Amino acid sequence: MKTVRSLRFLFITLVGALVLATNIAHAADPLPLWHDGIAKQSIVDFVEKVTKPGSPDFVPAAERIATFDNDGTLWCEQPMPVQLYFALDRVKALAPQHPEWKTQEPFSSLLKGDLKTALAGGDHALLELIMATHAGMTTVEFEQVVKDWLATATHPKTGKHYTEMVYQPMLEVLAYLRENGFKTYIVSGGGIEFMRVWTEQVYGVPPEQVVGSSIKTQFELRDGKPVIVRLPELNFIDDKGGKPVGINQFIGRRPIAAFGNSSGDQEMLEYTQGGKGARLMLLVLHDDATREYAYGPARGLPDVKLGAFPAALDEQAKNQGWIVVSMKDDWKRIFAFDK
Amino acid sequence: MKTVRSLRFLFITLVGALVLATNIAHAADPLPLWHDGIAKQSIVDFVEKVTKPGSPDFVPAAERIATFDNDGTLWCEQPMPVQLYFALDRVKALAPQHPEWKTQEPFSSLLKGDLKTALAGGDHALLELIMATHAGMTTVEFEQVVKDWLATATHPKTGKHYTEMVYQPMLEVLAYLRENGFKTYIVSGGGIEFMRVWTEQVYGVPPEQVVGSSIKTQFELRDGKPVIVRLPELNFIDDKGGKPVGINQFIGRRPIAAFGNSSGDQEMLEYTQGGKGARLMLLVLHDDATREYAYGPARGLPDVKLGAFPAALDEQAKNQGWIVVSMKDDWKRIFAFDK
Repeated sequence: MKTVRSLRFLFITLVGALVLATNIAHAADPLPLWHDGIAKQSIVDFVEKVTKPGSPDFVPAAERIATFDNDGTLWCEQPMPVQLYFALDRVKALAPQHPEWKTQEPFSSLLKGDLKTALAGGDHALLELIMATHAGMTTVEFEQVVKDWLATATHPKTGKHYTEMVYQPMLEVLAYLRENGFKTYIVSGGGIEFMRVWTEQVYGVPPEQVVGSSIKTQFELRDGKPVIVRLPELNFIDDKGGKPVGINQFIGRRPIAAFGNSSGDQEMLEYTQGGKGARLMLLVLHDDATREYAYGPARGLPDVKLGAFPAALDEQAKNQGWIVVSMKDDWKRIFAFDK
Repeated sequence: MKTVRSLRFLFITLVGALVLATNIAHAADPLPLWHDGIAKQSIVDFVEKVTKPGSPDFVPAAERIATFDNDGTLWCEQPMPVQLYFALDRVKALAPQHPEWKTQEPFSSLLKGDLKTALAGGDHALLELIMATHAGMTTVEFEQVVKDWLATATHPKTGKHYTEMVYQPMLEVLAYLRENGFKTYIVSGGGIEFMRVWTEQVYGVPPEQVVGSSIKTQFELRDGKPVIVRLPELNFIDDKGGKPVGINQFIGRRPIAAFGNSSGDQEMLEYTQGGKGARLMLLVLHDDATREYAYGPARGLPDVKLGAFPAALDEQAKNQGWIVVSMKDDWKRIFAFDK
């Protein structure tokens, strides 16, 4: 009997040690790359209250939907959005097959390296560029083109691959939310099929949880093989008021947390906040010229063409209780390659 | 030491019993409402080979996507699709607010109970009907209207609620696939927001896994509240070639299994089969006039306007190795209320 008692004691001790270890793991910092402050505390407080059974703010796991803008929220979008670099490189690669581009704008200026003149045509020029480089092939072919490009293209300032230009503290937030039963979605103005190629590997977000802008597609049998062909026609712009529309169409639930960084995300945050119960709305402010970029024009920061964070958005954030994250003050490290 | 040995023996016996119990559970029939036969065997064989680690046909869980048509595949679509009954009841409910409908087709004939004349206008009449009854309110208001209607409306032949008119053997397939790591999607010509109201409760399919036809929507602030308003304009028809397009847009992966019952599903099955590796394509044939309905016109069964299974589809199924399920011969029971 003594042996049995000893064994029982050992068992109880082991279970006790396990419980202790679990508690310690629970108490560990879920966001180690975030400095202590309002932003970090708001995220942790929100997650704890919506996941605590019996809490008045408890949300069932199935309804824990969090949406993230991509450009400027999860990865760097300066000096130009990554997808625009992709389009420019594609124009160069496709130029030999398009002799007419030598005299046709915006291609002619682009091929001479004069980006400013090329994009002077505004939205129309941009659309021409996107259609010429993103349409006319099957979805499988397009996926391969994006993959090949990402493997070689590098950022003009850091020389790093674009998929290395992702914000490490935001990867922590994505993982922390998922560990707490959230489904994390990308909801971006960027092209849905451009993003799906790499979001699973880089963010842990599978293709079916990516919402984005799109061109029309068409089912075809090519040489007897069923394929989907990308057409040179706009289908959906997932920006501004389009973000709640895209969320409703793809997800069919209102998010309880939304993360953005610019005017394009305003409506997504408003829509998120408009639901009942606890909500978390967060905007990333790029105020770190040393480690990334500094742009507003809110708070006297320099203005930019794409991805601006105007003073009015800063004011709205203050009035509606949205969290503004200072990259400079809230983040210990930005990129994985930072020292 | 003897006690230790006894305890060890007890432990080994317990583990052995557990392993045995698990094996028995595994060997239990996963599809008890299916008669033994080619259809049932094909489903089980497929699931076993794609989930068996080390098998040449193994598919990682993340890529186990199965898509299901709804009308006629998961629930009854005769004598008319359920959503059409909904539209007709809505016309009656809204008529007092629309005195102009007394003289305006298709409403005028509908309100007189003359369905045949009302629908003689074909697609145009149908579209008028859908827009008048499905648009003009917020998404939240529409959800409530559908909920209220489903709670009271009943099927003209059985007198049962429409959500009771679901095929029990197909519920088994949905559950069996999910237990084996599949993500199950609805991909239907029906309205996406009409289905999302009840698919989670009835099929265990959450809103974000429902792909369907849709009208356009718009983000608005109404009395300061952020809402999404349904517009009287077609957005997307998720039928025929639209099904692979919808699958690609919403899921971004090619399914490895697809289930349908009519010509509208042909392209979805072709697209599914077009990928590499093991695939399962299945069509439900309605050949049971006693327990449900019998319609083709394949195999000499009566023809129908909506949901037809033509002889050409039957022929294609045979040539391409698609499984045709006979409701009469393959299913022990169809509805939960069957004796």
